[in-house]
Amino acid sequence: MVKPDRTRTGEVEFIERIRKRVAPAGAGGIALGIGDDCAIFRPRGAAEDLLFTTDMLIEDAHFRRDTHRAEDVGWKALARGLSDLAAMGADPRFCLLSLALPPWADRRWTDGFYRGFLRLAAREGAPLIGGDLARAEKAMCDVVVCGAAPRGRALRRDGARSGDAIYVSGALGGSALGLATGRGRAWRRHLRPEPRLALGRFLRERLRATAAMDLSDGISLDLRRLCLTSKLSAEIGPPPIFPGATLEQALHGGEDYELLFTVPPRTPVPARFEDLPLTRIGQMRAGKPGAVSLNGAPLPPLGWDHLRK
Amino acid sequence: MVKPDRTRTGEVEFIERIRKRVAPAGAGGIALGIGDDCAIFRPRGAAEDLLFTTDMLIEDAHFRRDTHRAEDVGWKALARGLSDLAAMGADPRFCLLSLALPPWADRRWTDGFYRGFLRLAAREGAPLIGGDLARAEKAMCDVVVCGAAPRGRALRRDGARSGDAIYVSGALGGSALGLATGRGRAWRRHLRPEPRLALGRFLRERLRATAAMDLSDGISLDLRRLCLTSKLSAEIGPPPIFPGATLEQALHGGEDYELLFTVPPRTPVPARFEDLPLTRIGQMRAGKPGAVSLNGAPLPPLGWDHLRK
Repeated sequence: MVKPDRTRTGEVEFIERIRKRVAPAGAGGIALGIGDDCAIFRPRGAAEDLLFTTDMLIEDAHFRRDTHRAEDVGWKALARGLSDLAAMGADPRFCLLSLALPPWADRRWTDGFYRGFLRLAAREGAPLIGGDLARAEKAMCDVVVCGAAPRGRALRRDGARSGDAIYVSGALGGSALGLATGRGRAWRRHLRPEPRLALGRFLRERLRATAAMDLSDGISLDLRRLCLTSKLSAEIGPPPIFPGATLEQALHGGEDYELLFTVPPRTPVPARFEDLPLTRIGQMRAGKPGAVSLNGAPLPPLGWDHLRK
Repeated sequence: MVKPDRTRTGEVEFIERIRKRVAPAGAGGIALGIGDDCAIFRPRGAAEDLLFTTDMLIEDAHFRRDTHRAEDVGWKALARGLSDLAAMGADPRFCLLSLALPPWADRRWTDGFYRGFLRLAAREGAPLIGGDLARAEKAMCDVVVCGAAPRGRALRRDGARSGDAIYVSGALGGSALGLATGRGRAWRRHLRPEPRLALGRFLRERLRATAAMDLSDGISLDLRRLCLTSKLSAEIGPPPIFPGATLEQALHGGEDYELLFTVPPRTPVPARFEDLPLTRIGQMRAGKPGAVSLNGAPLPPLGWDHLRK
């Protein structure tokens, strides 16, 4: 696994450095560029915006051949991108898959991978329409998912306002617990995350959430990102914890793929959406952008940073 | 480099196997699925079709750290996808980049990579709007390019008709020669391929080409793919050869990124488009789909197969 190293430039700084070198959004149909869960493109004359996200899954960084079944790897490869669509309240339209196969990947493994991938693709209405194939020393894939939302209505990270209530869906830390123990419900949660697509649509259409994102890298880091983008700080209490997980796992463990969202303070939020609890954990505040406090003390962003080694 | 091994399942068969498991094009805005240079999506209400292609570039499979400068790697990573758009006569709209960085990739390398990538992106009007970042043992990237073409007008591989004349742009074998020698104009050609976007638009708008594709894997294999998709065979003579290259390199060497296209037999085709020669090399025939003959003898598809080892 890629190990954290606090001395390296982190992902937030890296992305900021790239963003400064790229043309700003606004021209050529680009409604939203680098920095959110998805980029947004507005096709000429179309009634809806198209959202795009890409996610890599790499052997020995994101999964291990001896512990992760091919079918689970295929499922998860797609689930991550679908979760990004869910975060913005979008409907899946299609996906593309680039797959690099190592020498050990036989037909059985490859068929298993596609079985897991295509099962989720069919269930969520995201047909596979193309991609690329290559040989490499390790298995790795990159998945592009495209979704659609009514023009200008996709949920973004930058819309939170001071005073907004902060909510999370489900319970956190399950995936980290599963990775640590390799068994039970937590392990299945780690292997087969569920993109919260129906919840995302509900947040956009009904609740009119002001901001949303998915929890892929741990709430300590992800909430910091939402705060940075919305130019606010946040005060939270402990989030709901997955049965058996620790508070540390719930705060800093990645890959829960629950949704984090904000709503105006008086918005009535139901206790559950379908079977999924929705829990108020705090509120957005004016203050140092990106600062997150837990029970009044600063919460360090110790979640998963993809560029730390 | 990945070595050919004729005993493994090849790419054509592999893709055919996947395609059979995927929903056919036609529903949900999918105008063209797996099997061409790009997939085609038709946004609701939009005046134009959107084309998508993804291309991986992997250390020690597609480039070497000690011979390929970071800036050239970044350029080429994007050029491959732009060449797929050129093949279908599309205009670039945007791109996404997933990049996995190995331990040896310092800031200098990464900045060089982005410099080459973003220079080509700016020149061709394909702004970078998103992507993914990860750590891995080897450098690798996957680039998604989106382009647009008037509804139903993108050039495809499946439109060739019996009797159509077959043309190629430029001269072939330069990239293979460059890879073998590591110097001169051929080496620069290998490092910095030029996507033929203006030619692609000319083929679509003016020449009304019946089919087109880019030569990424060698004409012996690529023409076979065009024939298979169009359910025809082809008879050709020797293609124009890059100065210094062998006939073998011109026939089977990959990465020339010239365009291969077909037009009705009486279409007047200029000898050059801008500075690029357009050369008639043969014609399409009814006959065994996929069969290609050179000077009357079968031409084996010895070009680059991404799934052979």
